Amino acid sequence: MSKLQGACIIGQSGGPTSVINASAYGVIRTALDNPDITAVYGAAHGIKGVLDDKLYDMGKEDAQELAYLLNTPSSELGSCRYKIADPDVDDTDYQRILEIFKKYDVRYFFYNGGNDSMDTCNKISKFMQKMGYECRVMGVPKTIDNDLFGTDHCPGFASAAKYIATSCAEVYKDARVYDTGMVTIIEIMGRHAGWLAGAAALAGVVGCAPDLVYLPEVDFDMDKFLADVTAIYKKNGNCIVAVSEGIHYADGSFVSEAKTSATDGFGHAQLGGLAALLANLVKEKTGAKVRGIELSLLQRCGAHLASQTDIDESFLAGKTAVEAAVAGETDKMVGFACTRENGVYSCQTKLFNLSEVANFEKKVPVEWINAEGNGVTQDFIDYALPLIQGENQRAVESGLPRFARLKKVLTTQEG
Amino acid sequence: MSKLQGACIIGQSGGPTSVINASAYGVIRTALDNPDITAVYGAAHGIKGVLDDKLYDMGKEDAQELAYLLNTPSSELGSCRYKIADPDVDDTDYQRILEIFKKYDVRYFFYNGGNDSMDTCNKISKFMQKMGYECRVMGVPKTIDNDLFGTDHCPGFASAAKYIATSCAEVYKDARVYDTGMVTIIEIMGRHAGWLAGAAALAGVVGCAPDLVYLPEVDFDMDKFLADVTAIYKKNGNCIVAVSEGIHYADGSFVSEAKTSATDGFGHAQLGGLAALLANLVKEKTGAKVRGIELSLLQRCGAHLASQTDIDESFLAGKTAVEAAVAGETDKMVGFACTRENGVYSCQTKLFNLSEVANFEKKVPVEWINAEGNGVTQDFIDYALPLIQGENQRAVESGLPRFARLKKVLTTQEG
Repeated sequence: MSKLQGACIIGQSGGPTSVINASAYGVIRTALDNPDITAVYGAAHGIKGVLDDKLYDMGKEDAQELAYLLNTPSSELGSCRYKIADPDVDDTDYQRILEIFKKYDVRYFFYNGGNDSMDTCNKISKFMQKMGYECRVMGVPKTIDNDLFGTDHCPGFASAAKYIATSCAEVYKDARVYDTGMVTIIEIMGRHAGWLAGAAALAGVVGCAPDLVYLPEVDFDMDKFLADVTAIYKKNGNCIVAVSEGIHYADGSFVSEAKTSATDGFGHAQLGGLAALLANLVKEKTGAKVRGIELSLLQRCGAHLASQTDIDESFLAGKTAVEAAVAGETDKMVGFACTRENGVYSCQTKLFNLSEVANFEKKVPVEWINAEGNGVTQDFIDYALPLIQGENQRAVESGLPRFARLKKVLTTQEG
Repeated sequence: MSKLQGACIIGQSGGPTSVINASAYGVIRTALDNPDITAVYGAAHGIKGVLDDKLYDMGKEDAQELAYLLNTPSSELGSCRYKIADPDVDDTDYQRILEIFKKYDVRYFFYNGGNDSMDTCNKISKFMQKMGYECRVMGVPKTIDNDLFGTDHCPGFASAAKYIATSCAEVYKDARVYDTGMVTIIEIMGRHAGWLAGAAALAGVVGCAPDLVYLPEVDFDMDKFLADVTAIYKKNGNCIVAVSEGIHYADGSFVSEAKTSATDGFGHAQLGGLAALLANLVKEKTGAKVRGIELSLLQRCGAHLASQTDIDESFLAGKTAVEAAVAGETDKMVGFACTRENGVYSCQTKLFNLSEVANFEKKVPVEWINAEGNGVTQDFIDYALPLIQGENQRAVESGLPRFARLKKVLTTQEG
């Protein structure tokens, strides 16, 4: 492979996770330590930072503060949801990116995000090749949704899963404290894939399983749902339901959207309020005391509960991206190939072609969903349980999380 | 003091907390080890367990399982919200309690709960004295609301406060990840007292303070609220608001109740949905992207984040109740007297007369609320910060919380 010297840019995109900064740190630390990489820039708010020439000089940061990124949730460099155009239709953004790359002699571009980010990587790389500008482009995945193609799992999923399963176990205890019974509906993120809602079932490993789990992979049937809940409530005097925000009827319409238009008249596209909707319907049907709980942003930013396995793997993904790029790779996403034979989990990084990864959503296999469509099978548990292992050793200050405090010195501010 | 030998009953009542079981363990462990106490019974679902003769023999439990109670949230013996009658009006329940006490030779009664539980203790004790039955009665406080009279603070408050402040710090990071701005409303428990909402401000210690905090101690003014939020959002492009579920207008009506009657027609007395209501109003007013987050049950059962200080003190409260009762005390609640001189926190147990504690709600002092009525002062921080110190060393099994698994052998089942 040819040797390539120059600067690198790391950007973050899409919804944040508890460990996306661990991946960024994997890139930044490895790049700072690599002699072929002459400067390390963090793009402010992803590709928008490149377009706006807002780049932080990561070489100006204190090493210990950078290390705190391992336990700092959200996207510390800032994220964006900017969808880059098709270069064949409009190459304005690409020309601007090329201009910035040339200005800073950027020869390595690392993009830390989900599906859309892998697509962005792919398009930028193809454009640079077309223009004859040598730049190696690598995707570093993240998504709590766990829906990226090829890789065994995605950095970020496991920590959200651990948060969800732990919270469900705690709510399990709380929800049966009175002898009067209650139905509890827990709403979990995941618009199209049910990996996160399925993770609620992990609480069963410590005897605190939800009674019912509904994933978006199965068309939702309200009558069946109400019958399921009623039967369990009548039998046990209690029922806990984990439900994906993305459950939808057979016609594709979201159950949650029916609610917002029906009751508050705002008709927001934004999902949410599903737990309250279902709880009220259960109350009408059964007369039970009900409670709807939405895990909301907490499940994706709850870094205090991040899985150490996830943190380690997220860092490794970033590190591997840099090492592979310096060794000559480009147009790849760093994913994982894992084995779980005889209960022993083993994980290796593996490179996937960006063009194969982009714009493909991986859903929970139907054979991991029970026949009733209201729970997951042992195969799902065996898959997900190894990922949530390991309690993180985060730094604490005055009893509260000590997050990274970066200086964020813009290159344009430097003297 | 006279020596008194006999059995003891421990019961739990009211809404659970992350550490109420630590107090129960303090009672149970100390009582099991005390030669004057001949048997230790746990009442199933509080005073209802006494009335129904449903008592668990705690001597039948494995010592290690009992120790897991230190990190098990919710009320492991079961709770109730049963309000005992005034004995001068109807003494049926009291006669039944006396019957059970005589049946098991119960000479010590420990009740682990909030305001109402202290009232229950007081009434039972007075009745037993009237009937000439010697039984020492002690209250062991718990409440996340922190509203009990006399004591510096209540077991349970600190762990909820730590959960709230940590979650607010994490949401702070998540809520400013995009450069497009957002207003986030975080709804926190506390119907009449603002201790928990105020705890959100602790996140400021690590630079992640909410911009605005609204407590029920101050009459809520919707116009002022919207003006506050708009001003901060316009200035910073972002605004995080912590709000107590119990905020109310000057006429005493809850802000949240106006919502439930207006939009869903159910008119539940149960609070909730306030965050969504306020978020929607802010959206209408400012056009900002908004998100409402309700911490719901999570804040009171999030034992994985329980403050070690709280766990230690909760255990100590239970232990002290037994030791004091054996030494001759009765009709007391175990509380705390604390000093915080020069930043050094010191806590001693102190006994309070039940008759003084019962039915009095302690609110946040007005001088700890800022002049604008939308935040707390440094005095509040100095008060609460020492309480959330210490990361608990909870047991973990397969990456998930290992809770106590008690056998719960009923005395009526024993051979």
